[in-house]
Amino acid sequence: APPSGASATSDLKANFKAVFPELVDEIMAELHDQFDLPEDALKYIRHNLEYNVPHGKLNRGLAVSHCYKAFRKGDAIKPHEERAAYILGWCVELLQAFFLVADDIMDASVTRRGQPCFFRLPQVGLNAINDSLVLESMIYRLIRKHFRDSSVYVDLVHLFQDITYTTEIGQLLDLTSNEADKVQLDRFTDDALARIYKYKTSHYTFYLPVALGMRLAEVSDQKCYDTAKQICLKIGHFFQAQDDFLDAFGDPEVTGKVGTDIEENTCTWLIVEALKVATPADMAILNENYGVKNKANSDKVKEVYTRLGLKDKFLKFENKTYEEATKMIEDVSGMPTGAFEFLLTSLYKRKK
Amino acid sequence: APPSGASATSDLKANFKAVFPELVDEIMAELHDQFDLPEDALKYIRHNLEYNVPHGKLNRGLAVSHCYKAFRKGDAIKPHEERAAYILGWCVELLQAFFLVADDIMDASVTRRGQPCFFRLPQVGLNAINDSLVLESMIYRLIRKHFRDSSVYVDLVHLFQDITYTTEIGQLLDLTSNEADKVQLDRFTDDALARIYKYKTSHYTFYLPVALGMRLAEVSDQKCYDTAKQICLKIGHFFQAQDDFLDAFGDPEVTGKVGTDIEENTCTWLIVEALKVATPADMAILNENYGVKNKANSDKVKEVYTRLGLKDKFLKFENKTYEEATKMIEDVSGMPTGAFEFLLTSLYKRKK
Ligand SMILES: [Mg+2]
Ligand SMILES: [Mg+2]
Ligand SMILES: [Mg+2]
Ligand SMILES: [Mg+2]
Ligand SMILES: [Mg+2]
Ligand SMILES: [Mg+2]
Repeated sequence: APPSGASATSDLKANFKAVFPELVDEIMAELHDQFDLPEDALKYIRHNLEYNVPHGKLNRGLAVSHCYKAFRKGDAIKPHEERAAYILGWCVELLQAFFLVADDIMDASVTRRGQPCFFRLPQVGLNAINDSLVLESMIYRLIRKHFRDSSVYVDLVHLFQDITYTTEIGQLLDLTSNEADKVQLDRFTDDALARIYKYKTSHYTFYLPVALGMRLAEVSDQKCYDTAKQICLKIGHFFQAQDDFLDAFGDPEVTGKVGTDIEENTCTWLIVEALKVATPADMAILNENYGVKNKANSDKVKEVYTRLGLKDKFLKFENKTYEEATKMIEDVSGMPTGAFEFLLTSLYKRKK
Repeated sequence: APPSGASATSDLKANFKAVFPELVDEIMAELHDQFDLPEDALKYIRHNLEYNVPHGKLNRGLAVSHCYKAFRKGDAIKPHEERAAYILGWCVELLQAFFLVADDIMDASVTRRGQPCFFRLPQVGLNAINDSLVLESMIYRLIRKHFRDSSVYVDLVHLFQDITYTTEIGQLLDLTSNEADKVQLDRFTDDALARIYKYKTSHYTFYLPVALGMRLAEVSDQKCYDTAKQICLKIGHFFQAQDDFLDAFGDPEVTGKVGTDIEENTCTWLIVEALKVATPADMAILNENYGVKNKANSDKVKEVYTRLGLKDKFLKFENKTYEEATKMIEDVSGMPTGAFEFLLTSLYKRKK
């Protein structure tokens, strides 16, 4: 039998998943009431939701509940309170879907979560830009519907707005880390990488769900949010480095996506580490093949990565960072750490 | 000498324009304080603002002030109150910029406001998707900075959220009015057109600035908002029909943009009217050439439009609709109508 923690976690996940179709129905009912829309438009919108939102690992969405429960420790949580945490969790998953649909267009990606990227569907194409915006708007529909009369309503809206802006700034750093069509490997530094990770990934993936759980639990001590952010940035750096590693060396059958980082000239953990130890001969290969939209070229870059021992180096980095993050969490006092443990555990040695 | 009304209007416009660089500086200062960003990222963001936001006709932004002043009639408006209306006006212009940057990608447009569409700039490309999102986020930064302590703060946020969602739904109707790569002219009906106009254009272009001005003037009577919406939807229908006409028959030197509607298979006033009177021979030409991404094909469609007398029909439609809208405004009682008059006058016989 799995340890009871694992079983409780899988119950939580099942309960969380069960809420999604209800929220879709709510959103569709509201659209039906507030707009005069033909059947095929309603069908198109439902497909957008069902195709893009529920098929991820759901750790972001679940983290809201984990955090909320950890901070309510001792209290009996009423069903409507549990549901509130699930709804905010789905709002985080909507935010993620909004970002991914747009990001896949910008990165010219092919697959996502084991299915074609949304914009690759023949009936969608660049409509996906607008569809991603619709997903974003639905976050605020749901929050207004379910939290308008709550004392934390405006804080919840602000959290989503702030983290959305932060993520967009992070995307901008990612997208502009090189000038268009130029390979400027000297720009790929530890500092540039850390900045991209911090803004592009860590805030929305880790800090947002934790902060939402805390806000919902009416935590008002700013120090708790500051501590949470510090830990979430650490975990986020760990997570994004894994994401970069899997982009080159993961199994697309398992990750559900085909990597694009090398072809898209992205600043990643791998290229930053490669540049630290590359010989002049390696540098020539990297300069010639990085950022070229062709598999033969990206394979040459991967050969350099392999020759430079980056797979091994990554394992060491992974172990070291995991230990550091564990230590940070152990050192926390005066606030529950269940959410951080859930998040960190979900990442350990992940293959997807 | 111009009539004093025109002179007051041009003063207002100059004052309104003078506020934009100040808001840019505010936004940049906040970015500098809240994020750790390299110089070139800050420069990129400033360029996004300066390239995309201030170069339109600015009637949307100005309408906020016109409406606010009309509703404050009799009161002495303090400088900080006047400024508040300008700031909300620039938020409407930000919203418009956000939509246009994204729309131009989806419509494969070439020019906008006499300059290349943002995504056509070599240093931008599909980054423009993210850049449009950044523009959207800045709306809420500005509103929070300037109105957080105001009693109307949450209403202002809700107005922007609601109208954004409405516009996205309208874009979706526009984009899905045909299935991808199919020409299904029978779908182009008066009803479909009216629905697209209402959601895609009228709400954000006309109702939003008026409602913002009213909210800022602390108008709380729901009937006033309902009346305003009715008139704004009428003016919006008029405006979008003009936009459709100018897309085919306007002078790109004057409109600042090259039309894409025929090639993009768009549901427009022209095609809907053409279908009402087309002979079987015309229908064959329309079916063969509509929605084909080639100038020779779209020219053939325009020949049919011309042969069917649509230019003349449009002039009649324009006069009739203008008169109907004027009548609607004259019939309003119990609330000032200055904003509607400003908006309708700004459209009369417009060439851009
Ligand atoms: Mg990307
Ligand atoms: Mg990507
Ligand atoms: Mg990646
Ligand atoms: Mg369009
Ligand atoms: Mg367009
Ligand atoms: Mg148009």
